[in-house]
Amino acid sequence: MIKIGIIGGTGYTGVELLRLLAAHPEADLRIITSRGEAGKQVAELFSSLRGHVDLAFSEPETKSLAGCDVVFAATPNGVAMTHARELLKAGVKLIDLAADFRLKDPAAWEKWYGMPHACPELLAEAVYGLPEVNREKIKKTRLVANPGCYPTAVQLGFLPLLENGLVDTQHLIADAKSGVSGAGRKAELHALFSEAADSMKAYGVAGHRHWPEIRQGLDSASKKSVGLTFVPHLTPMIRGIHATLYARLTQPGAQLQALFEQRYAKEPFVDVMPAGSHPETRSVRASNVCRIAVHRPHDGDTVVVLSVIDNLVKGAAGQAVQNMNIMFGLDERTGLDQVAVLP
Amino acid sequence: MIKIGIIGGTGYTGVELLRLLAAHPEADLRIITSRGEAGKQVAELFSSLRGHVDLAFSEPETKSLAGCDVVFAATPNGVAMTHARELLKAGVKLIDLAADFRLKDPAAWEKWYGMPHACPELLAEAVYGLPEVNREKIKKTRLVANPGCYPTAVQLGFLPLLENGLVDTQHLIADAKSGVSGAGRKAELHALFSEAADSMKAYGVAGHRHWPEIRQGLDSASKKSVGLTFVPHLTPMIRGIHATLYARLTQPGAQLQALFEQRYAKEPFVDVMPAGSHPETRSVRASNVCRIAVHRPHDGDTVVVLSVIDNLVKGAAGQAVQNMNIMFGLDERTGLDQVAVLP
Amino acid sequence: MIKIGIIGGTGYTGVELLRLLAAHPEADLRIITSRGEAGKQVAELFSSLRGHVDLAFSEPETKSLAGCDVVFAATPNGVAMTHARELLKAGVKLIDLAADFRLKDPAAWEKWYGMPHACPELLAEAVYGLPEVNREKIKKTRLVANPGCYPTAVQLGFLPLLENGLVDTQHLIADAKSGVSGAGRKAELHALFSEAADSMKAYGVAGHRHWPEIRQGLDSASKKSVGLTFVPHLTPMIRGIHATLYARLTQPGAQLQALFEQRYAKEPFVDVMPAGSHPETRSVRASNVCRIAVHRPHDGDTVVVLSVIDNLVKGAAGQAVQNMNIMFGLDERTGLDQVAVLP
Amino acid sequence: MIKIGIIGGTGYTGVELLRLLAAHPEADLRIITSRGEAGKQVAELFSSLRGHVDLAFSEPETKSLAGCDVVFAATPNGVAMTHARELLKAGVKLIDLAADFRLKDPAAWEKWYGMPHACPELLAEAVYGLPEVNREKIKKTRLVANPGCYPTAVQLGFLPLLENGLVDTQHLIADAKSGVSGAGRKAELHALFSEAADSMKAYGVAGHRHWPEIRQGLDSASKKSVGLTFVPHLTPMIRGIHATLYARLTQPGAQLQALFEQRYAKEPFVDVMPAGSHPETRSVRASNVCRIAVHRPHDGDTVVVLSVIDNLVKGAAGQAVQNMNIMFGLDERTGLDQVAVLP
Repeated sequence: MIKIGIIGGTGYTGVELLRLLAAHPEADLRIITSRGEAGKQVAELFSSLRGHVDLAFSEPETKSLAGCDVVFAATPNGVAMTHARELLKAGVKLIDLAADFRLKDPAAWEKWYGMPHACPELLAEAVYGLPEVNREKIKKTRLVANPGCYPTAVQLGFLPLLENGLVDTQHLIADAKSGVSGAGRKAELHALFSEAADSMKAYGVAGHRHWPEIRQGLDSASKKSVGLTFVPHLTPMIRGIHATLYARLTQPGAQLQALFEQRYAKEPFVDVMPAGSHPETRSVRASNVCRIAVHRPHDGDTVVVLSVIDNLVKGAAGQAVQNMNIMFGLDERTGLDQVAVLP
Repeated sequence: MIKIGIIGGTGYTGVELLRLLAAHPEADLRIITSRGEAGKQVAELFSSLRGHVDLAFSEPETKSLAGCDVVFAATPNGVAMTHARELLKAGVKLIDLAADFRLKDPAAWEKWYGMPHACPELLAEAVYGLPEVNREKIKKTRLVANPGCYPTAVQLGFLPLLENGLVDTQHLIADAKSGVSGAGRKAELHALFSEAADSMKAYGVAGHRHWPEIRQGLDSASKKSVGLTFVPHLTPMIRGIHATLYARLTQPGAQLQALFEQRYAKEPFVDVMPAGSHPETRSVRASNVCRIAVHRPHDGDTVVVLSVIDNLVKGAAGQAVQNMNIMFGLDERTGLDQVAVLP
Repeated sequence: MIKIGIIGGTGYTGVELLRLLAAHPEADLRIITSRGEAGKQVAELFSSLRGHVDLAFSEPETKSLAGCDVVFAATPNGVAMTHARELLKAGVKLIDLAADFRLKDPAAWEKWYGMPHACPELLAEAVYGLPEVNREKIKKTRLVANPGCYPTAVQLGFLPLLENGLVDTQHLIADAKSGVSGAGRKAELHALFSEAADSMKAYGVAGHRHWPEIRQGLDSASKKSVGLTFVPHLTPMIRGIHATLYARLTQPGAQLQALFEQRYAKEPFVDVMPAGSHPETRSVRASNVCRIAVHRPHDGDTVVVLSVIDNLVKGAAGQAVQNMNIMFGLDERTGLDQVAVLP
Repeated sequence: MIKIGIIGGTGYTGVELLRLLAAHPEADLRIITSRGEAGKQVAELFSSLRGHVDLAFSEPETKSLAGCDVVFAATPNGVAMTHARELLKAGVKLIDLAADFRLKDPAAWEKWYGMPHACPELLAEAVYGLPEVNREKIKKTRLVANPGCYPTAVQLGFLPLLENGLVDTQHLIADAKSGVSGAGRKAELHALFSEAADSMKAYGVAGHRHWPEIRQGLDSASKKSVGLTFVPHLTPMIRGIHATLYARLTQPGAQLQALFEQRYAKEPFVDVMPAGSHPETRSVRASNVCRIAVHRPHDGDTVVVLSVIDNLVKGAAGQAVQNMNIMFGLDERTGLDQVAVLP
């Protein structure tokens, strides 16, 4: 059994981690912290966990966390980095679900997240936890930067094209639609039901924090600096990301369907659908799967990739558990075999 | 392993059965039939099942079903009764998710369902599959009538009051709100997104098929003929039933909270919440739990019970699997320990 | 033209007032105040008003408001009462959309709203602005307490029964379902999309501020102190209230359908539907209509009334404009003839 | 007063036409036909129209329609063309809300709509009813082809760029999201609440009927044959289209914001928002406005245009009324000044 701690378990990625770990045969959840809710039973805050989680929130103290094998940080950006040194020093592995260790360049971190990095010396060591790219590194690391939700959907959709040099890398377009849970469990006007329901809007067109993260991954896949236009949209659904990706084909003869199928043939959580498919976000609701379809409309030179995930699972807590499985030598699918909830 | 067949797996109770059985360690799904979709892969119809169910729909033939240990009928009302005799004769247990065997009185069946009963001789033998009432009978039967969704939520909420003779049984009121999936996977105008979203309405106030079913259960619990007003409402959500129950207290000194807690203390799937609680349907989404709270507003003589279930799980497929577990001597919770999906 | 001021126009009742007044041929909107948004263009906050409202929010000052013929208070509870004396003294009529002047008893106000009343001497003079009951008084008053949303739907449904002494007044039940906009435009966790969507729950069963308001109206209609159980529910829709009312008939021979039709025959905004109908909230979306249907299921002694309104229109801003029309001698329907938006 | 007939008023564009015409001071609705509902009161089918429309559906007969000044066809594709010759011969103007007269090339019609055209000789005469492009022609015509919903949102967004030759016309991308009402009021599985709610999917990537219509308009605006990738998405909202448009800028110095503002300065129903804006579909809900914002992320060479409409108003019935106003010499805004319904 793996002794597990969670820092900051009162948000949506926190409750989702709890849901997944409750069903994980090797997970021994020891401690879950929250400064604001210390002392309260977890199941009092999230009644869905009644009968499944019998823990109370505690104050975040390194001492008690140090007894864990691994700690998940489900905290706001900028918190995990203040715990990292001590935890690693104590021999605890750390999986950060926030952005603290995603960008390799501390200057980029400071620019996009508005604060200096607390432990820049750890950035080189941190492994970007996209198993479909970095599985071998994840096996050996003690520090995983769990990818963002948009970056997961967008990178998995673009990777086969970029790794094989099939498209114009200077004009990549990612039009992404996210459910409202992506905004987190925070009392903010724009995320109110009466503001977000029955409506659609783009946001952050001028610049979104996931843009540099996605670019970093695509740069690496294509071995050059890509040009990316990324437009996220707030969609009236709870969970789900639908990324619609556009790229100009430079290799007209490419066998796209076969290429995608081969790239992900051995991946347990990427499902390339048959040619002509249109994946729905609900087909991955509450599951750790990324479903992808690739199209070339009117046999033209624009390739369209459709990539869907559940932002809270493959886009956050599920991928974090997948990374834990890899780090501890378990079968990658352990505790992650849930069938999507449809309808 | 239990060899399992499903008749009519193309509706919402069908796909939900498949989701649950895919995670059931003792389930060996052998056959799933559909007249309309015979030959098509199940996962082609429900992409959520890709990688989990590797079966194609077949024609409903008694011969192939006869090799199963148990058959679930997830068919429209009136179909299971045409298969029942032959299946039972072949030694197959039958769990009907439709209404064919719920009403003990064949005349009531004919009145409410508009057709004569095909095997009235089996009605006496059929056990109404509400484990919280009939667990011992379910253990021994070969024919289970799985309860309706509204009847499950309403009966579980009223039972402690009626079994203890605490309320006026002549003026029971059940105001029930159901998600749209309760209408089934049928192409009907009133269930369109653009008809049902962002709106609320009552329906069937003059008479609903679940009224006689609920009354039959309440009659039995109170050992007299009850008076029940039942008003169902179509609610703009996919899953979930919220039953709000009203009864006039005739025993003013009754300790309602303790009474409910004791009644359900040993029930694995009924969760009596602390005094003052308001259960949410999402707290049971995709799980087999019924959450209940009991109130007595302003210390008056009206008791209010709040009872929530997922109509497709405890209100249909989950309860059917629970019944199967009981019939085959398994731990009742086998394959049904999913944490609700929240948010 | 009526010179109009609005205090506190940044909430949902405020923006709805603006929508209605923009289409009102006699409305001359002069001033709209907001402490928090002073200086900002109204249309910058609510882009739906671009091209329709060319005003900026200003600080709430009695001096500038004193030049108006009428002021609407679309403020939180407890604010209008601090402006009332001065406005009335300046000869300005006041329509309060909050609760400050609804309860006749200042002790009840203090109990339910947690603060002493700032001008209890005005409570007797204030007219409860339900035109279907108090039209003649509204014509003559300078101070209208605009009814709450639940109280409007519930009272209009019960009135014909109570005024005619047809039911047991000691056991009235109002099971009411409201859209989330009823919670206001406030950044609160429970009103987030990811909390309120795709779920249903009751709240405030132990006691809700609208309970004494409804009781006061029903007491008056029945000329005795009624017993009322009121259970509000949060429903995943933006607008709309569906009140389902239950009462025990004491006059079995009553002609309910005719009675309701006669009671509201001359009311421009109450629509009694044909026998057997089930009104939908969307049938009144964005309109000032209350649609009602009356049922007597199974010819029993329980009468069921279904009453739907748009909580922001007939339940707030529309009724306020209706009251203004009455106070200023206009045709009551002026500016309020919008057809509901369906779908 | 304009004598008006409507063919086929039982769909969503039909009921929306009725809503708008009920508020139009010059509209005299004489007849509304429906083969399936002949004899039934319109308000019986759509309870939102109770008190506003006092007509019954009648059989579609040219004789009675011939007495109208104008007929709106709110019928499925292929129906209006069977009425056109006779109506025009009788001196009746025709506004077709379906696609029958949108494509100038009868071969393209046959290819995309799967049937030969019934009156190809009228195609040249028909005017494509996008007032922002064809206002002068609309004034003089007797036959208007009312644009599709996607084509309206997409063309209005692209026009300023194409008319001024600012972008690479060979690689235009339109990623469009539509509410479910765009699928019409038809009993089809994919449009069920339980299929479409809380989920997102693309559809018709391989080819959608609006693709040739959009291209025809963009070809005309840019005076060359454009290359267009068009991906529509089904979004869980009732009304609204959000088109996100991408084009590569070939004139880097272009003043995009000023250009858009100037292009639409005199247009009553196109609202160019301030730089940096993100229009929401709800800001145009139930109104005839198209709101547009133009962005150039990271000062790169990709321009992003955000264009939102209500698919049933500016995308269908509202634009049809706007066209009627133009054809009959009325102020274009007559009856179309509704403020959007927000929230």
